[in-house]
Amino acid sequence: MGSLEVAKLGHVALEVPDLEGSLRFWRDIVGLEEVERREGEVYLRAWGDFEHHTLVLMRGEEAQLHHVAWRTRRPEDVEAFRDHLRAQGVEVEEVEPGAEAGQGYAIRFFVPTSGHPFEIYYQVEKPKAPEGLRSRLKNQVYPAFRRGVSPRRIDHVNLWTGGQDPTPTHDWLVEHLGFKVREYIQLPNLRLGAWMSVTPLVHDIAVMFDGATQGPRFHHVAYYLDNWQDVLRGLTIFKEHGILPDLGPGQHGISQAFYSYVRDPFSGHLLELFSGGYLILDPDWEPLEWRPEELVDGLFWWGDRWDPQTQPDHPFSRTTGVRRPGVRVG
Amino acid sequence: MGSLEVAKLGHVALEVPDLEGSLRFWRDIVGLEEVERREGEVYLRAWGDFEHHTLVLMRGEEAQLHHVAWRTRRPEDVEAFRDHLRAQGVEVEEVEPGAEAGQGYAIRFFVPTSGHPFEIYYQVEKPKAPEGLRSRLKNQVYPAFRRGVSPRRIDHVNLWTGGQDPTPTHDWLVEHLGFKVREYIQLPNLRLGAWMSVTPLVHDIAVMFDGATQGPRFHHVAYYLDNWQDVLRGLTIFKEHGILPDLGPGQHGISQAFYSYVRDPFSGHLLELFSGGYLILDPDWEPLEWRPEELVDGLFWWGDRWDPQTQPDHPFSRTTGVRRPGVRVG
Amino acid sequence: MGSLEVAKLGHVALEVPDLEGSLRFWRDIVGLEEVERREGEVYLRAWGDFEHHTLVLMRGEEAQLHHVAWRTRRPEDVEAFRDHLRAQGVEVEEVEPGAEAGQGYAIRFFVPTSGHPFEIYYQVEKPKAPEGLRSRLKNQVYPAFRRGVSPRRIDHVNLWTGGQDPTPTHDWLVEHLGFKVREYIQLPNLRLGAWMSVTPLVHDIAVMFDGATQGPRFHHVAYYLDNWQDVLRGLTIFKEHGILPDLGPGQHGISQAFYSYVRDPFSGHLLELFSGGYLILDPDWEPLEWRPEELVDGLFWWGDRWDPQTQPDHPFSRTTGVRRPGVRVG
Amino acid sequence: MGSLEVAKLGHVALEVPDLEGSLRFWRDIVGLEEVERREGEVYLRAWGDFEHHTLVLMRGEEAQLHHVAWRTRRPEDVEAFRDHLRAQGVEVEEVEPGAEAGQGYAIRFFVPTSGHPFEIYYQVEKPKAPEGLRSRLKNQVYPAFRRGVSPRRIDHVNLWTGGQDPTPTHDWLVEHLGFKVREYIQLPNLRLGAWMSVTPLVHDIAVMFDGATQGPRFHHVAYYLDNWQDVLRGLTIFKEHGILPDLGPGQHGISQAFYSYVRDPFSGHLLELFSGGYLILDPDWEPLEWRPEELVDGLFWWGDRWDPQTQPDHPFSRTTGVRRPGVRVG
Repeated sequence: MGSLEVAKLGHVALEVPDLEGSLRFWRDIVGLEEVERREGEVYLRAWGDFEHHTLVLMRGEEAQLHHVAWRTRRPEDVEAFRDHLRAQGVEVEEVEPGAEAGQGYAIRFFVPTSGHPFEIYYQVEKPKAPEGLRSRLKNQVYPAFRRGVSPRRIDHVNLWTGGQDPTPTHDWLVEHLGFKVREYIQLPNLRLGAWMSVTPLVHDIAVMFDGATQGPRFHHVAYYLDNWQDVLRGLTIFKEHGILPDLGPGQHGISQAFYSYVRDPFSGHLLELFSGGYLILDPDWEPLEWRPEELVDGLFWWGDRWDPQTQPDHPFSRTTGVRRPGVRVG
Repeated sequence: MGSLEVAKLGHVALEVPDLEGSLRFWRDIVGLEEVERREGEVYLRAWGDFEHHTLVLMRGEEAQLHHVAWRTRRPEDVEAFRDHLRAQGVEVEEVEPGAEAGQGYAIRFFVPTSGHPFEIYYQVEKPKAPEGLRSRLKNQVYPAFRRGVSPRRIDHVNLWTGGQDPTPTHDWLVEHLGFKVREYIQLPNLRLGAWMSVTPLVHDIAVMFDGATQGPRFHHVAYYLDNWQDVLRGLTIFKEHGILPDLGPGQHGISQAFYSYVRDPFSGHLLELFSGGYLILDPDWEPLEWRPEELVDGLFWWGDRWDPQTQPDHPFSRTTGVRRPGVRVG
Repeated sequence: MGSLEVAKLGHVALEVPDLEGSLRFWRDIVGLEEVERREGEVYLRAWGDFEHHTLVLMRGEEAQLHHVAWRTRRPEDVEAFRDHLRAQGVEVEEVEPGAEAGQGYAIRFFVPTSGHPFEIYYQVEKPKAPEGLRSRLKNQVYPAFRRGVSPRRIDHVNLWTGGQDPTPTHDWLVEHLGFKVREYIQLPNLRLGAWMSVTPLVHDIAVMFDGATQGPRFHHVAYYLDNWQDVLRGLTIFKEHGILPDLGPGQHGISQAFYSYVRDPFSGHLLELFSGGYLILDPDWEPLEWRPEELVDGLFWWGDRWDPQTQPDHPFSRTTGVRRPGVRVG
Repeated sequence: MGSLEVAKLGHVALEVPDLEGSLRFWRDIVGLEEVERREGEVYLRAWGDFEHHTLVLMRGEEAQLHHVAWRTRRPEDVEAFRDHLRAQGVEVEEVEPGAEAGQGYAIRFFVPTSGHPFEIYYQVEKPKAPEGLRSRLKNQVYPAFRRGVSPRRIDHVNLWTGGQDPTPTHDWLVEHLGFKVREYIQLPNLRLGAWMSVTPLVHDIAVMFDGATQGPRFHHVAYYLDNWQDVLRGLTIFKEHGILPDLGPGQHGISQAFYSYVRDPFSGHLLELFSGGYLILDPDWEPLEWRPEELVDGLFWWGDRWDPQTQPDHPFSRTTGVRRPGVRVG
């Protein structure tokens, strides 16, 4: 489809059964800033996020992913994507400007191979922080370290395909949204997962197999912190709120991320605190294959320990659901 | 010139009068890895650099920049650049494959507005580290922290235009190489400098005015470290070798870099240890203007102190020269 | 005087002309916890301080040190010190239990050689933090990183003797309070300063010469942070409040401290953010002498630069006053 | 026994079956400095250790603790300890000056309650580093970060009492060597362990119960690093040598240590990388009791996870042996 590519991850919208509880986690403890509130919806972003929001918490019947939103390179690309997807037989919903706060015309659809709800948009407000909460740095929105763990910006999402082979989804993201595969795990009978990006980040999205569930699942959204030490400081803060990480601290082999995973106790949605990693600036990057015997190293370079034979029920395997076609929130 | 854009910074080639001395600085103390050596030339890279080299040290009469090299997006772009530049009246030298170790066909020219020597190439080897020096991480070349300060990768270059207004050079880089201006300092009568990139880094290159010299100057090459703490650890190591930083540690307002600047005592070439900063993933980034009253904050957010009125001869102002047309090295 | 030794630094009481302003600095930005408030007095401590207070802010005519307080090893030592000091001809004031919040019977006097106001006490409350502000860690008082820069604990004080040779004061502290000299700077005609302790810290107190003033001066109180990175994070926070450090970040040679110095803008009193350093556990430590040619390295190992010849008016030289005999606060 | 107290931990002597292999671990990867070598014995210390050695590796039939050495406060205390111990019925071996390199007259004995081999000494050389390997800092022995993980100094030892109640040993250390209990875990029928010190460190020694073995065991020796980040950097280095930590990174509740535990693959002896923690400067510290329901928090505040019910065979439980009376090394 030529040059029709998304430009970057925009935000994640998560349905949560206890909106006030989840706000306590994401805003008061994680430290995201509340930008706007509507009935049943709160829009949040990190201190270094420029767009109106990178996380939407929506009151819902259950904890599930409402959508992952991708920004296009040009305004006209949203309609081009709409037409292209429809030409592929994908059912596309149009979202009016303002239906999502701070955002213009957008489209929503379910990834045909996996069933994950995606949104594509271009127009978005980039509001300054309110007076008194504004960073003195003109290239930064809010002051860092105002409250809680205080990550800098959204980094990526990780989606699981349940019992389905994720390879068709990897291929679909490459062919239709412009993603490139950066690293992947190849098992004898299955590509276990791929780390993919349209930016120099190793992944804006990862899509992985999950033998224990059926259908599309949401694994986590990651926020970036400038220093490994900031992740450790975060764990100290979480523990004082009675929250232990599911995983970490440790380093992934794949992406080289220094990580820890912490779960919103009010919804079960998972957050990755992510620091480090590497950038892929080369135009001719060859996807890196991790072989079966490298699986553990790829996932857990050091820090967490995992024996796939004896620990099929690893904490890493717990996911939350995703919104299905035809189901409205609220 | 349409889609003809460079993809990324490749390397910097520096002439040095004392090659063994400078090797001691860049390889033994900074900790870059020696990849290949030829008569009068040593090719180096950091542990996370994938290309054959990101720094070339060349024996020369004096300390000066030999060239800054930019990689293109596609193989055919090198010849396209050659033809485009010649059509603009720029004198272009062709470099045969292998004339520079590990590198294919390339072109060299002097930026017409400023006189800085540039190289454009696409073909380059990405050699693995030798057995025994190879990282166990398959997405990394050498082990980190094998020796010395041990930065991860090359980050950017900073060039000064001497007594000339740098604005025409900013414009030329935008128009002919595809750079975007990310941040700049606007004084009443002069644009003091611009931070520009073709990647999501805030700058792959900065081009700045210098009232104290005439003609093109080389200010510094920056290498990136994963953590602020790694820069501090580096200063501890430098000091044990009798080397104090010219500047820092501190944070720049522009680019948000946590930095320190250390000078190769054998050549006077300047190295920036760079950590942190922010990424520009937005396709519609508006160049950020720093006004005269914001000048000091832009350069020295905290750490270093500078009063432009009383300190015209700031350590930040010391530069080394650049190779001029018609002069050969060696 | 045999085994009569103080055990540790207790607290520093500082008179400030703008109590609410200084509270904003020390409590809201530095992040100390307010423990108790009386008319014209606020008692503060860091999250890892066990005693009732380590800093008292007192409303005063001018910014000056009210007293530095030292805890004894045994309850009966306070009266023993009283008697010993009086036997030495030192005028000793007795402080009734409760006159200083949280504290029992104490004595106050002026160091006879330098004129600095000291307090000696033993009985002190070690209150838990209030419910809701209490650390879940049973060996810690408040949660770390609740607010602002958030140092762990008080570390040391630094006093200057004005135009007087500090050596008699060093000797007096050794002979009468039990301090040991750990490091000192010896100039040809003067011992410039000594770093002294009764604990394994390199210094609980430093006493230095100051050619620019007359009489006793207060240089700074230091609070300790666990990681060098925490000091850097602190500078980021201070700058967002419009406060730049006087000095640092950098490393002292003497004590090996990683430091930055930040001044309360409402009083001019100076705070050192201190991390790292080393412990002296050896019973036979020989005082380390820094010679004249090592002066700059001893003070500024890396980070700050200082040429004693051309910079007699270094930021390091700015001090605040101390309370003089016979003058009451309030 | 009045004022007869040890002053500090001196060193640990470990028997290892593969001396060259263990040297590779402790010297080349951990980065300890080799000070002296004798037939079958290598003496090592960290860059910030002042004494001749803090670790002795001795060729032995099996991996076991040869002795833990404690320095006294005064020269005459060694003989006083000898006489005191003999008066208690403890069999005391005298060690001639020089029998252990760099060390004067010493005594050795087995702790009567637990059977652990201890040494007590006072006279010890504090050699400077050789020319060329000497730190430019006059209060530091070697440059930091010369090689490998590069901890600063020895911190503490952890000994296990096998199936025996450790309480009598805690009491013996208090009564006969002058230790104070700082924190302890009290289970319904057993004091599981105590953290004890003669310095302001929370522990110079910990002595713990172990249900799985019989008789005295060696759990680990800890080395201190200045920053939490230094521990993480260490894990990166270990992994490049194919070594994963047994535990961590994580934070202990007890002592507040940020830790990771790494095992010498050639001997099985365990090393703790230790950073942070807190100091006890108060003369009236009350031992802190961790109750059964606080057991997991006390050991693993965050990072490692442990369910005592289902994981009796935790990696933390693996120990090495200790030398028994009458058995000579070599």
